[in-house]
Amino acid sequence: MNVEIVVIGDELLIGQVVDTNSNWIAREMNKIGWEITEITTVRDRETEMLSAFEQAFSRVDIVLVTGGLGPTKDDITKQTLCEFFGGKLVLDESVLRDVEELLAKRKLKMNASTRSQAMVPDVCTVIQNAVGTAPVMWFEKGGKVLVSMPGVPLEMKHVMVNEVIPRLVARFHDDSSILHYTCLVKNYTESALSEFLTDFEAQLPECVKLAYLPNPGVVRLRLTARGRGGENLQHQLDVQISKLNTLLGDNIFCHQDTTVAGAVGLLLKKQHKTIATAESCTGGNIAHQLTLIPGSSTYFKGSVVSYANEVKERVLGVNKNDIEIYGAVSQPVVEQMARGVQRLVDTDCAIAVSGIAGPGGGTPEKPVGTVWIAVVCGDKLYSEMFVFGNNREYNIERATHRALLAMVKMLTEN
Amino acid sequence: MNVEIVVIGDELLIGQVVDTNSNWIAREMNKIGWEITEITTVRDRETEMLSAFEQAFSRVDIVLVTGGLGPTKDDITKQTLCEFFGGKLVLDESVLRDVEELLAKRKLKMNASTRSQAMVPDVCTVIQNAVGTAPVMWFEKGGKVLVSMPGVPLEMKHVMVNEVIPRLVARFHDDSSILHYTCLVKNYTESALSEFLTDFEAQLPECVKLAYLPNPGVVRLRLTARGRGGENLQHQLDVQISKLNTLLGDNIFCHQDTTVAGAVGLLLKKQHKTIATAESCTGGNIAHQLTLIPGSSTYFKGSVVSYANEVKERVLGVNKNDIEIYGAVSQPVVEQMARGVQRLVDTDCAIAVSGIAGPGGGTPEKPVGTVWIAVVCGDKLYSEMFVFGNNREYNIERATHRALLAMVKMLTEN
Repeated sequence: MNVEIVVIGDELLIGQVVDTNSNWIAREMNKIGWEITEITTVRDRETEMLSAFEQAFSRVDIVLVTGGLGPTKDDITKQTLCEFFGGKLVLDESVLRDVEELLAKRKLKMNASTRSQAMVPDVCTVIQNAVGTAPVMWFEKGGKVLVSMPGVPLEMKHVMVNEVIPRLVARFHDDSSILHYTCLVKNYTESALSEFLTDFEAQLPECVKLAYLPNPGVVRLRLTARGRGGENLQHQLDVQISKLNTLLGDNIFCHQDTTVAGAVGLLLKKQHKTIATAESCTGGNIAHQLTLIPGSSTYFKGSVVSYANEVKERVLGVNKNDIEIYGAVSQPVVEQMARGVQRLVDTDCAIAVSGIAGPGGGTPEKPVGTVWIAVVCGDKLYSEMFVFGNNREYNIERATHRALLAMVKMLTEN
Repeated sequence: MNVEIVVIGDELLIGQVVDTNSNWIAREMNKIGWEITEITTVRDRETEMLSAFEQAFSRVDIVLVTGGLGPTKDDITKQTLCEFFGGKLVLDESVLRDVEELLAKRKLKMNASTRSQAMVPDVCTVIQNAVGTAPVMWFEKGGKVLVSMPGVPLEMKHVMVNEVIPRLVARFHDDSSILHYTCLVKNYTESALSEFLTDFEAQLPECVKLAYLPNPGVVRLRLTARGRGGENLQHQLDVQISKLNTLLGDNIFCHQDTTVAGAVGLLLKKQHKTIATAESCTGGNIAHQLTLIPGSSTYFKGSVVSYANEVKERVLGVNKNDIEIYGAVSQPVVEQMARGVQRLVDTDCAIAVSGIAGPGGGTPEKPVGTVWIAVVCGDKLYSEMFVFGNNREYNIERATHRALLAMVKMLTEN
């Protein structure tokens, strides 16, 4: 089945909020073999929303709408859906009771605007929203379905998993499948890899596609098989996976669709090793990325974010003289940070980063973006310097990425 | 000026990558008074891309396209733009030289696929991409402009700021303005706030709009003024900002469009206070959020991520008996973590969090999602328990948010 998403909200079009809902919905749809073919993001304006609904319906049978369902005046999705499907807003007693219950549980009072949440189009089926006050609405027209859901990610996810997906699957019987295999490849740039895989790509069967998702120092390769009849498709995909693995060997360091932090976790788990981090410019982001992975407590023990030099000295035992002579962003300091946190937290491995994220703090010798990275594993130590760019967020992200990649290399090549 | 964005890439529609480019572009456009009116995300398919270009051009004069420009076979944006504007791909010697130079700088070799980056449509003006190999292409048709840029955020941002925006501004003279004022409000739910502000909203002039962006425990309020003639518009907005401030008083704890972490930073800076964090289930994310803010080194000194209990004891000085009696996720432990890191890092304030992010680790008494938060400032201490949900990422995010909000209250109410 092909599905489109319509995302509603001024906040998305002035850049105040990043739409992460569509990404999540796409993954969930993929799991049941359905594809998102287009995403349209529109403002809280009636004509623009109507046009988006109309066009999506002209292309696909299922349209998932998120956002614009708040109790405030700027949200007009409900009224616009009435207009589109030809209905009017009426008070739904059962929604009202749900809202009352939810408010009571949260020790909040009902007022005119929360009460307005119980006004729903008389031409839809209301689906209970157990975790919020905005109604979830199911519309049908000419055999096609539009489901309107709140934009709050928690609420949307809850109703999608518990209500919307089961109903969609029951409503649209479909035996098409979509299968993905993703792996992480090191030691190749995107273009070197694509050259190396030219013959492999040329021999792929019609139903299997190869895609490259590059990141500095790592390429995510994705094989996607689309078609009907699950088992044969899986077999066709497996044949290609096996060929790819023969071609790339140890350059594939992870056979799952995960982050580099996830790959580090899988390697640590396999090797029964523990890890800690000592972070200056990355400010805890490496620890954060490592601990986003479920089950990371089996290998991740702890971290020290040593922003101030006195924390580097006092907590991590970095030599004060070395900081004075070489500066906080230097090879001796970052190596001592790595050794220091390995000792303090008592782990097998450690990652340390010290750099200048910017916008301030740069000098002619060490411009903003200069970052030293050290990784240790037992007695082994490796350190490297990078010079990224001028953007603080980017420098933090890139330093995090490079530090985790250095740990991958330490765990796979030594 | 109204602008549309067309985002290209299968990876966005299968949920492998979140589109953060559009958000960034929207902000930059807003700065020059231009508006993004629609974002369309399509797959790497010719017909779908053509239809997206056509529809965008039917609505606006400027279309910004990102993605689909990699050197690999799955990227067909260049060919499709040739089709759309009626041209063919030709080798551009100056692009070839740029690619050669860039590769030499990165110590990489040219191959067939990087060489193909120098093939560009003969119906466009090529703009130099100083930070990548993908060409940036400027097309014109019937007085309308389409600019195609790489999807790699760093490259796109670099060419937008340095090349595309200056050229767009020179090409389209426009004196319309868009002004935003955003503030952060505590102590109100979205619906209570909207009820409280009913009269305020009713008296707003036509050119000023009010919008609510709710988050648990905090509502971001945004006033947007749109129109021509900058000065009068600013005055009209200022009048409404002043009314809003009179109405809400101290409930507005931040007058900038920033994160709660950013608001904590502003408060600390104003009060000349320093901060540290001790994190268990949030795994360094609070430190990360605090250090994302430029200039945070003036108030943020350091953190300890104490995932393992022995780190809580040994580094933060939490009483081993208390961990055994009350558990690691408990009021005594989280309070000792806060005091411990305040002492260790030697700061005025500290935030501590201990919780069960899940999916493992829950018990009937302490289910997954149980989180204890403590904030300290000098001698003052406040701690509170929350029970969030089952989703690990959500629990980390929500715990981070609530902990930072608790710090806001500590800094504004005591």
